[in-house]
Amino acid sequence: MKKVLFATSALVAFANVASAEVAVTGDGRMGMIWDGEDIQMHSRARAKFTMTGETDSGLSFGGSFRVDQENYRADPLHRSAAKGTAGSVFISGTYGKLSMGDVLSAAEAAMGDLPELGYTAGEFAGDPEEIDYLTGDGANENQGPSALYEYTFNGVKLFASLSDGSQRACDGTVGALGCYDFESDKDSDLAYSVAAGYEFGAYNIALAYSKWGDQSEIMIGGNAAIDAFKIQGFYAKYDNRVVGNEIVGDDDFGDFDLPPGAEYNAAYGLSVGYTLANGVGLTAEWITRELDFNGSKWEGAPDNFDAYGIGASYDLGGGATLAGAVMKNELYGDNETRADMGVKFKF
Amino acid sequence: MKKVLFATSALVAFANVASAEVAVTGDGRMGMIWDGEDIQMHSRARAKFTMTGETDSGLSFGGSFRVDQENYRADPLHRSAAKGTAGSVFISGTYGKLSMGDVLSAAEAAMGDLPELGYTAGEFAGDPEEIDYLTGDGANENQGPSALYEYTFNGVKLFASLSDGSQRACDGTVGALGCYDFESDKDSDLAYSVAAGYEFGAYNIALAYSKWGDQSEIMIGGNAAIDAFKIQGFYAKYDNRVVGNEIVGDDDFGDFDLPPGAEYNAAYGLSVGYTLANGVGLTAEWITRELDFNGSKWEGAPDNFDAYGIGASYDLGGGATLAGAVMKNELYGDNETRADMGVKFKF
Amino acid sequence: MKKVLFATSALVAFANVASAEVAVTGDGRMGMIWDGEDIQMHSRARAKFTMTGETDSGLSFGGSFRVDQENYRADPLHRSAAKGTAGSVFISGTYGKLSMGDVLSAAEAAMGDLPELGYTAGEFAGDPEEIDYLTGDGANENQGPSALYEYTFNGVKLFASLSDGSQRACDGTVGALGCYDFESDKDSDLAYSVAAGYEFGAYNIALAYSKWGDQSEIMIGGNAAIDAFKIQGFYAKYDNRVVGNEIVGDDDFGDFDLPPGAEYNAAYGLSVGYTLANGVGLTAEWITRELDFNGSKWEGAPDNFDAYGIGASYDLGGGATLAGAVMKNELYGDNETRADMGVKFKF
Repeated sequence: MKKVLFATSALVAFANVASAEVAVTGDGRMGMIWDGEDIQMHSRARAKFTMTGETDSGLSFGGSFRVDQENYRADPLHRSAAKGTAGSVFISGTYGKLSMGDVLSAAEAAMGDLPELGYTAGEFAGDPEEIDYLTGDGANENQGPSALYEYTFNGVKLFASLSDGSQRACDGTVGALGCYDFESDKDSDLAYSVAAGYEFGAYNIALAYSKWGDQSEIMIGGNAAIDAFKIQGFYAKYDNRVVGNEIVGDDDFGDFDLPPGAEYNAAYGLSVGYTLANGVGLTAEWITRELDFNGSKWEGAPDNFDAYGIGASYDLGGGATLAGAVMKNELYGDNETRADMGVKFKF
Repeated sequence: MKKVLFATSALVAFANVASAEVAVTGDGRMGMIWDGEDIQMHSRARAKFTMTGETDSGLSFGGSFRVDQENYRADPLHRSAAKGTAGSVFISGTYGKLSMGDVLSAAEAAMGDLPELGYTAGEFAGDPEEIDYLTGDGANENQGPSALYEYTFNGVKLFASLSDGSQRACDGTVGALGCYDFESDKDSDLAYSVAAGYEFGAYNIALAYSKWGDQSEIMIGGNAAIDAFKIQGFYAKYDNRVVGNEIVGDDDFGDFDLPPGAEYNAAYGLSVGYTLANGVGLTAEWITRELDFNGSKWEGAPDNFDAYGIGASYDLGGGATLAGAVMKNELYGDNETRADMGVKFKF
Repeated sequence: MKKVLFATSALVAFANVASAEVAVTGDGRMGMIWDGEDIQMHSRARAKFTMTGETDSGLSFGGSFRVDQENYRADPLHRSAAKGTAGSVFISGTYGKLSMGDVLSAAEAAMGDLPELGYTAGEFAGDPEEIDYLTGDGANENQGPSALYEYTFNGVKLFASLSDGSQRACDGTVGALGCYDFESDKDSDLAYSVAAGYEFGAYNIALAYSKWGDQSEIMIGGNAAIDAFKIQGFYAKYDNRVVGNEIVGDDDFGDFDLPPGAEYNAAYGLSVGYTLANGVGLTAEWITRELDFNGSKWEGAPDNFDAYGIGASYDLGGGATLAGAVMKNELYGDNETRADMGVKFKF
């Protein structure tokens, strides 16, 4: 009998550990990519920490980040989980969940991006699945951590996110000596976003409004699961979203150094996925970005940029998936078609 | 009966793992700070590895470091656990414990800093709790790993620490090609510290002597727990501790580029903490730094710098603590009051 | 009875976790080194992630990397597990094992280096145990991940490795904007290696051929365990391996900036180890590198470079080992004797 008691106390011990613990998980991938000119090998391995706990009164709290998100010394203005600009922490209870760090904007939390394609998740084709959310998503990282609040009831999902409108100093703390604080910079403009979603059966719709200084974004999106099909779509309308490169950095619109006066007016996209009974999945998607070059020296040039692709995947079980895709993203000046094929792992 | 045996052998298996293992723990925090001009959001998440083992003869050994302490490539002269200048390793037995790496000086091991205030542990107010120990504490990191020896018997605690008086070469190894080796630099002066402490009931006193080249430090400190009160104090006297900036770096004395001839003569401080039965804690503290500008071009200027603050905390249980503080640290030229309020987590 | 069932289901739960998991292990070391001029303290602590899984059809997959191998932002062209140039991932089944990332070349996978000496594994004496493999081993890291295939049957071991002949762009992805792509650089020359080994009882022999652009390497090696002795040897013949520094970097041949026309012709080495019954091990080894300065301005200078050392170790049990060595490596211009003594840990 005593041995049996040992056994059950062991279970209790493990249960206790689970109430405030750090779980280590990982992912990996290996395969080939076609970069438009050459075939290349690409692989990676990553590890992630997921921390969870619970207060005496029943509030949940936690945080998570990956090893490769901790590299602060490399670039004091880059993202770092230990400085709040990568990974995130949260506290949640009856009245919702509050997260802080490198969180999603409310708009992105409500709608997400389109599905990732291929074993590299679109990375080698400039992420054709990615929607250019106005706030969050890296846009406000110079303001340090942002906050996201989420609350769900009866299928209604409410989201609100906020940056603090105050620049990081050069080592991540305001107390740092000799650091810049450009009050008039757009990095000091408050960025916020509000969004609402509604889930009814296999259908979801969401509406979002975001603002960052003078710039604003209105988005509507939705997804539906109809038999073996999954469909997702969005439409985003921007106001005063200036992408000419005297104001924003060179890398704000793909390969293109757009002239002053160029504006980003709208984006819309659609994805369709189909899952076969044997574990095979097929996905096709398309995003169009509408710019306006009127009033700039590019006036009259084509001002639409498309990104699209098709992907297939096969679930090998145990966390392994075979996947491949063919993609094209006009954000690249070379405008070539890219492809990948390989296997990805979850541990 | 066989199943019961399975269960107990599972216990044995876990016990074995524990004898040479790596434990992963973490911490996090989220909240707001007042930087003297703006309210800012601040959060972070960190993970720590703690490694332990035991030799056949019963010696304990181990090591520990955090993920964010491993960033060697970012700056070859910066701290890195894989290069011995962050985290530490140890071996210990009947005759004491020997640690090597980014260890405390003997003086700091015996006395520690004053209590940390607020949910950011004083970080956003220049760490008003921190004592300017002459050796260790980052001062000798250009000499690579330091060593710390600790031995305790009958309430007597003995400490000795030592740097190696030899500069790191540029990639952390002496064998590195083309690296500097400034023999006459103060970074090549041996730094050492010896300290003794005595614990009687709820009282501790400690005395320490440290030397780094021509500079020396004599310190006395103590703490006492009287009912719900905790009191800690220290006095440090420095000789030849030159802080004028032609000799040491600009960042050696807060915001101030002190002129040649400026010396750091003494520091002293006091903290008082009070813990209520309901999990609320209150702490107040003060440190004064005495400099001497005689013989420098700042002769006659005020030469005392104070740092002080009050903090409150509330234990939420499960590893979460609500905490806030108001602090001021005259090491900042702007001399503003700073504050924080938020929640911190242990996982 | 129910409690017993609890206990066994706990076992099942842990067994399941083991089928797709991340294990965290670590290592450490502490001791003293003699750098030829000074005694220095050296210590370190490292943590490693080992990920394993299995597909439904029984293929094994996994990956591994150390925390200190993840530092991409520090140097976009340096190694990073998240970018495939440190650590590695693999998939294996009946038909062999395919690895990708920072893998060994086929030649090195078949033969390995000579045994590491001292508690610092030779690191403080320029790794006298290391063989200068033509491919892999860091040589082709500018091409991003490499691939290694291994297959074993009846004591026969076959190896093949390959780089992709395509340079990494500056952030590790080809899609990166504004990155270089020097087509004519040797970093764009395909590198490959094939090797075969045969194991009969306690004897191993291996033969390898490697090619990188115009350069080639033929190697033969072997090892034998005879009673308490372990013997290992190798001979490598190089063709067109130019080491004069107008073509390769300054650090390609130790301390020496060799003039154009200098070639690396051959290398050979031998190690002998002896293990005593009480856990003490002794190892001695020697490597000679033959260069040819004919046709260069160093013509007539001595063109052999030796590296040699002796080491001793004592197994303390539980993962701790006391070790020391005396080593000399003529790749250092100063040509001094170096030594280390300390303890190393496995967690």
